[in-house]
Amino acid sequence: MSERREVKVCLTPDLFSIYSDRKSIVVVVDVLRATSAMCTAFHHGINKIIPVSTVEDALDYKGLDSHILAAERNGKMVNGFDFGNSPLQYQNTEVKGKTLVVTTTNGTKAINIAKEDHQVVVGSFLNIDALTEWLKNQEKNVIILCAGWKGDFCFEDTLFAGALSDKLVDTKQFYVDSDSANGARMMYRNAKEDMFTFLTISQHRKRLAHLDIVEDVQFCLQENTTAVIPFLKGDELVLVK
Amino acid sequence: MSERREVKVCLTPDLFSIYSDRKSIVVVVDVLRATSAMCTAFHHGINKIIPVSTVEDALDYKGLDSHILAAERNGKMVNGFDFGNSPLQYQNTEVKGKTLVVTTTNGTKAINIAKEDHQVVVGSFLNIDALTEWLKNQEKNVIILCAGWKGDFCFEDTLFAGALSDKLVDTKQFYVDSDSANGARMMYRNAKEDMFTFLTISQHRKRLAHLDIVEDVQFCLQENTTAVIPFLKGDELVLVK
Repeated sequence: MSERREVKVCLTPDLFSIYSDRKSIVVVVDVLRATSAMCTAFHHGINKIIPVSTVEDALDYKGLDSHILAAERNGKMVNGFDFGNSPLQYQNTEVKGKTLVVTTTNGTKAINIAKEDHQVVVGSFLNIDALTEWLKNQEKNVIILCAGWKGDFCFEDTLFAGALSDKLVDTKQFYVDSDSANGARMMYRNAKEDMFTFLTISQHRKRLAHLDIVEDVQFCLQENTTAVIPFLKGDELVLVK
Repeated sequence: MSERREVKVCLTPDLFSIYSDRKSIVVVVDVLRATSAMCTAFHHGINKIIPVSTVEDALDYKGLDSHILAAERNGKMVNGFDFGNSPLQYQNTEVKGKTLVVTTTNGTKAINIAKEDHQVVVGSFLNIDALTEWLKNQEKNVIILCAGWKGDFCFEDTLFAGALSDKLVDTKQFYVDSDSANGARMMYRNAKEDMFTFLTISQHRKRLAHLDIVEDVQFCLQENTTAVIPFLKGDELVLVK
């Protein structure tokens, strides 16, 4: 058996400099809803995804054939765009074979912070088991990077970090040794029987309450609806073959 | 009854810019061990405490009458100093009437970040009820600033933040509405029956295991051994009268 590797949990992108080691694989997670939407888009046949940091950057792709433009800020689709970050939107055949250009409040920022020095993959509850299996075979330490909310801690991404940490430890190929990873696991164990109800106390749910995203939240909390693993190659997310 | 005020929890000094509002009272906590040591020193009659950021700054006070110099880095007393951050050291009559100049890895940094724009008080389990009562009467929102460990999340300060949040909410003068405050309360409720055992999984305990600080940890987890409230006035901590 190979030597056990460490899983760390970075609670927000603003703390990533503490974790950056130029060696670990970084799993970026923005459960509500960017990385859930990305997994869904790949599952429905999107060809690749270009995560960009700003709305301006996304608009650079306007008018290009086979490109779908998506932009979300503060939980809402930006005016002038046809797609936001609701995963439900990507459940259709229209996306098949296209390139998705996307910018979101937190998720694409986290991807772009991590990509400078690390191999980046995208995680969500939707692909958690496939991701666990893939990470098990990579022979590298793992940093789970929670996209959070505007730089700060948020519940939903931390719950995912706890769930993925548990699964990785269960493979016996990984260990955790940090307060943030142990804290995330503890919160997940408190919440896992009914994450939806648990998240009713979360800031994010309250922030988005007026947006009627109940259906989105339920969708994003499903486990293993897909086996896709979006993987950053240069500046584009493609699928691990 | 006055309007209820919010208690927020800032999980590390590196996230303080998100919380800084130039209005709230900031409670700085470094349970293991800086703020516990400060409370103990005041309880035993120290006159004032000057928290400084660097060892060089502390050495500027060397040779001055009535000054005690304390410096800790990475859990150990710095060479050339007579005091570190073990609270047990301050349980003696020698400190009475003196000025303590102190620099620590995390605690004094947190104080100095917060003091620019906020009223700062020092918290620990040792003075938690006195602090709750005092905060209740201040008519301001409260930010509990966890000193953490080198900028990152740590269990012990988060547990204190959860405990103090619970106590403030119990006064019916405060509410919590953030994921970090709710997360801290959840962790505290998981841990409170036996915080000492709980902290055996913490990074900090492991970091300091070779330093034989078991007695310090037990001391710092005691509640309400003192009613002192160290309060920052200019650059010096003094007691709230």
